[in-house]
Amino acid sequence: SPHAASSRLKVSGMCFLLQMLIIILFAVFVRYSPNGSPGLCSPRLNCSSRRNPGPGSSYLRSWNVHLQILMGFGFLMVFLGRYRIESAATCLLVTAFAIQWALLIQGFFYSFQNGKIYMETQSMVSAVFCAGAVLVSTGAVLGWGNPLQLLLMSLLEVPLFSANEYVLLHLIGVSDGGGSLTVHTFGAYFGLALSWILRQYHVGKREQQQDTGHSPDVLAAVGTVCLWIFWPSFVSAAMVPASVEPWTELNMYVAMAASTLATFVMAPLLHKDGTPCMCQVQDATVAGAVMMGMAGEMLLAPFGALVAGFLAGLIPPLSSRFFAPTLLHKLSIQDARSVHGVHGVPGILGTLLGVLLAVLATADAYGDRLQLAFPHVADGSRTATYQALCQLCALPVTLLFAVLGGSVTGEL
Amino acid sequence: SPHAASSRLKVSGMCFLLQMLIIILFAVFVRYSPNGSPGLCSPRLNCSSRRNPGPGSSYLRSWNVHLQILMGFGFLMVFLGRYRIESAATCLLVTAFAIQWALLIQGFFYSFQNGKIYMETQSMVSAVFCAGAVLVSTGAVLGWGNPLQLLLMSLLEVPLFSANEYVLLHLIGVSDGGGSLTVHTFGAYFGLALSWILRQYHVGKREQQQDTGHSPDVLAAVGTVCLWIFWPSFVSAAMVPASVEPWTELNMYVAMAASTLATFVMAPLLHKDGTPCMCQVQDATVAGAVMMGMAGEMLLAPFGALVAGFLAGLIPPLSSRFFAPTLLHKLSIQDARSVHGVHGVPGILGTLLGVLLAVLATADAYGDRLQLAFPHVADGSRTATYQALCQLCALPVTLLFAVLGGSVTGEL
Amino acid sequence: SPHAASSRLKVSGMCFLLQMLIIILFAVFVRYSPNGSPGLCSPRLNCSSRRNPGPGSSYLRSWNVHLQILMGFGFLMVFLGRYRIESAATCLLVTAFAIQWALLIQGFFYSFQNGKIYMETQSMVSAVFCAGAVLVSTGAVLGWGNPLQLLLMSLLEVPLFSANEYVLLHLIGVSDGGGSLTVHTFGAYFGLALSWILRQYHVGKREQQQDTGHSPDVLAAVGTVCLWIFWPSFVSAAMVPASVEPWTELNMYVAMAASTLATFVMAPLLHKDGTPCMCQVQDATVAGAVMMGMAGEMLLAPFGALVAGFLAGLIPPLSSRFFAPTLLHKLSIQDARSVHGVHGVPGILGTLLGVLLAVLATADAYGDRLQLAFPHVADGSRTATYQALCQLCALPVTLLFAVLGGSVTGEL
Repeated sequence: SPHAASSRLKVSGMCFLLQMLIIILFAVFVRYSPNGSPGLCSPRLNCSSRRNPGPGSSYLRSWNVHLQILMGFGFLMVFLGRYRIESAATCLLVTAFAIQWALLIQGFFYSFQNGKIYMETQSMVSAVFCAGAVLVSTGAVLGWGNPLQLLLMSLLEVPLFSANEYVLLHLIGVSDGGGSLTVHTFGAYFGLALSWILRQYHVGKREQQQDTGHSPDVLAAVGTVCLWIFWPSFVSAAMVPASVEPWTELNMYVAMAASTLATFVMAPLLHKDGTPCMCQVQDATVAGAVMMGMAGEMLLAPFGALVAGFLAGLIPPLSSRFFAPTLLHKLSIQDARSVHGVHGVPGILGTLLGVLLAVLATADAYGDRLQLAFPHVADGSRTATYQALCQLCALPVTLLFAVLGGSVTGEL
Repeated sequence: SPHAASSRLKVSGMCFLLQMLIIILFAVFVRYSPNGSPGLCSPRLNCSSRRNPGPGSSYLRSWNVHLQILMGFGFLMVFLGRYRIESAATCLLVTAFAIQWALLIQGFFYSFQNGKIYMETQSMVSAVFCAGAVLVSTGAVLGWGNPLQLLLMSLLEVPLFSANEYVLLHLIGVSDGGGSLTVHTFGAYFGLALSWILRQYHVGKREQQQDTGHSPDVLAAVGTVCLWIFWPSFVSAAMVPASVEPWTELNMYVAMAASTLATFVMAPLLHKDGTPCMCQVQDATVAGAVMMGMAGEMLLAPFGALVAGFLAGLIPPLSSRFFAPTLLHKLSIQDARSVHGVHGVPGILGTLLGVLLAVLATADAYGDRLQLAFPHVADGSRTATYQALCQLCALPVTLLFAVLGGSVTGEL
Repeated sequence: SPHAASSRLKVSGMCFLLQMLIIILFAVFVRYSPNGSPGLCSPRLNCSSRRNPGPGSSYLRSWNVHLQILMGFGFLMVFLGRYRIESAATCLLVTAFAIQWALLIQGFFYSFQNGKIYMETQSMVSAVFCAGAVLVSTGAVLGWGNPLQLLLMSLLEVPLFSANEYVLLHLIGVSDGGGSLTVHTFGAYFGLALSWILRQYHVGKREQQQDTGHSPDVLAAVGTVCLWIFWPSFVSAAMVPASVEPWTELNMYVAMAASTLATFVMAPLLHKDGTPCMCQVQDATVAGAVMMGMAGEMLLAPFGALVAGFLAGLIPPLSSRFFAPTLLHKLSIQDARSVHGVHGVPGILGTLLGVLLAVLATADAYGDRLQLAFPHVADGSRTATYQALCQLCALPVTLLFAVLGGSVTGEL
């Protein structure tokens, strides 16, 4: 039809314009960081402890970043595994644009000096986190948005994500290395708010185009494999300096194992048809990993991670049974990839768990790790209770950024 | 049907009880190993040579374990690639439970001090080896076992695996870094014995539920990819200290390449229908890697690995053509995933190859590597012949553990 | 049919003979390189800067090569993701044979000492590059070649590849770390010339056997994932010493992101049916990475990589629309996997970009990196213009090797 043809030409033109815009901005502003320069760095990446790993450091640092990027793209591909194969190409488009755009925007926030952005490999790691949040939002919009709207969404979500991250990590001083709050909660509620607004404009339209089916099991299986292989190493590598035991990583593995069992506990209670499919197992495993995002570096014993992971694994089946129909009928939000149950609620619960652990934090229990988990408490500038209050305040701030941002994006 | 519904509720309750049990045991016994503590360690992991890698060690050690776990989960996913997609969720359940349970049981064996198990990243690597053996057994039982029986199997197999491993590596002093004997032979014959007992109880029942088809080619292709990418690095990283040339890894790659050619030699001779499918290629490649498990660190020239890999690649097609019907009709063993040909026989042959190489071991030929391949011979406490005898004795011990264990499990 | 049966038996016998030949040659010539020996090394691998990474080096070196091989096999699997699942087993056979054969042939070129080839892990990395070129050629021949012909092709292509690589890197002194010219251009035109000759002998025959369909989207998705995860790290790790910022890797990521957008620009203009499929996205991403093969280490600002990647992404859709029909009707070349558009043209353009950058190279702009990108210019033995001329001369040399070699192979 002529309408579909013109819509495809619009996508083509939009891609062309955006790519030209980015090339010009890169040509004017972006240069590679010179060899050996100290550089600037996002607070997420814990650069100070990274920068001086002792002898042989330049050699090591290089492998370090090779591997972080390797694992970072594995982390992105987990999200890809959650979509149907028909949407996978569109998701790759959104990822490719969001990474380029995030390199620019986050460069202005963190590494803008003398009129130039000095890009280095850490910039790529930050951009991968940002692209992760955009992919979470994509999951909520997929029923409604065409590629054009998804590109517009990325165009607005990347600066808002960066602003929220800047406020949380730089101004409020929140510890959220794994992105429970900054990546998953933000991405989920941004997407849900956007989906709510879009739905109001399109009532009755495009019902038949909704991409609401499950991803095929083969892709879900590959996605789950990538999740187990890459996610814990990536998230903990981004925040844990290498001189301490990698408890963050172990917490995450243990939580993911417990959430897998939780799926098999819930599935027969809620559904009449046999064992859970791979996509349900994948949802639960992602929920377990999201829950550990903030608390992963704070938990001091593995049974805490087991309990938290088990609870997180219960959420996606409960949410898709009880919350999703409410969302659909009361608020008219079509949550095609159940991002509310998989990223939204576990992200909020992970934040609350982080607040609880911050209240309980004492120098005795944490020892050297206090510096890592709560740097402001370790250097004496804050009490543990005050730090907990900061962590708690970050939740409404993020929700406000996400819901307002999503709504405004939908109105445009 | 009400029977199926009650069986599903039993799985749900069983998962819940096991997870609660593990959480309580973790809460009582398991703590993370404090930073910088020397820790205890399974003899498989060659900790002494690991622990002191020279300057910059704490930094390196961390990346080391990040990567070992990354590759370890790749190793597990090879097994996943051998199952049909319908069984993949069940296999993940078994994996998730076996890892948690192995962390506990192996903790009691190797790192129990002052009433606490001190868990560290090496514990996770050991648990991944153990989960590998459980997945091999799962392949033999898949036609007969429902998830309930597979969970019960894991509950009993993990302690037996750990006991057998303790006897072999600690008491007899066998060199088996890649697990030809401890992982693959044990897992295969445990599963086959269990399958034999279960079959006797279920004669005539559930014929139609057998998961005996081939895995789809896409999953087999992804599994083979994971095999090439992750297995050799993981297995050799677990045993070879980093200061020597990684011959173990090269032996494994070369053996896998030769076993791939062997499949194409055998397939047209045994079957009338054209080229082998991906699943046959995958079976042969796994057999080549299993064969190299024990001998990989002992072979001093690549042509030995080529010959061994080529022979290993001939076994799975021969086994599925000649042994499998015998097993089925004489012993009533239904070997759904041909674990006998892929893990059992190559594991035994790999052990015999290891015995042969131990007989031939001389300090002249091995040089520095003697310490690595046969530490007891290198420090003078054993002659090469005595070491070979120990390696040989380990075979009946493992078979006894496996067959008795599997039979007892089946009777319960 | 008896003809098909005899053809399958020929494949079986050929595999057996080749494997026996390789085992005998390995037994006579190949030994592992002793621990700590300096060894010989292909110029591709930048060994001198590799060898002395400072303190803790032996420990590091080992992880280094573990990882390079890990990523190298990921790189190979990208090619696998481009084939249909029916051909995947055949492609694995070709890979397994090419790796063994390349270990021998390249051993004779680079590490032949005192009548023995001393093999080490770097040899495996070189062999992986060579197997990559063979897989590119396989893509061009897949419609015509049976496994027998593909094995014969590998038998002849591996020595020709090694000879061309030796001439380019050793004699002419070309900088081509990522293999734009040596791997992709050589592989593409070797395969196309072979396909042209084979077509002449088989006119009218086997039309129905052509494997010309697209690979299924699931495999294309997995291939694209492997591409993003493994390719840039592998290629840049092979050439960049670790003490400099990994700009090569960043150039490649940025180029791949831009080429993804380019696909979405072109697809609606050329085709009437909606968004591009995963296989088109994968083709464009590969083209972007091929384009960066030579220029990746020479580009000093990311916008250059954006522009080059965007242009590379335009080539595969244009080629499959305009060049492929011409190739088919005028030259009777059936390019089943569009290697001309994906590897051939982007490889040539990448080389021309490398020539342009070599002309512009000045010590001021490059600083320390001049030693890396253009070692002969840095040590004063060549001017930048002369180096550019050398880079340019390498293009007709490679095309000559490829086209002549492919034609001769086809005539045999």
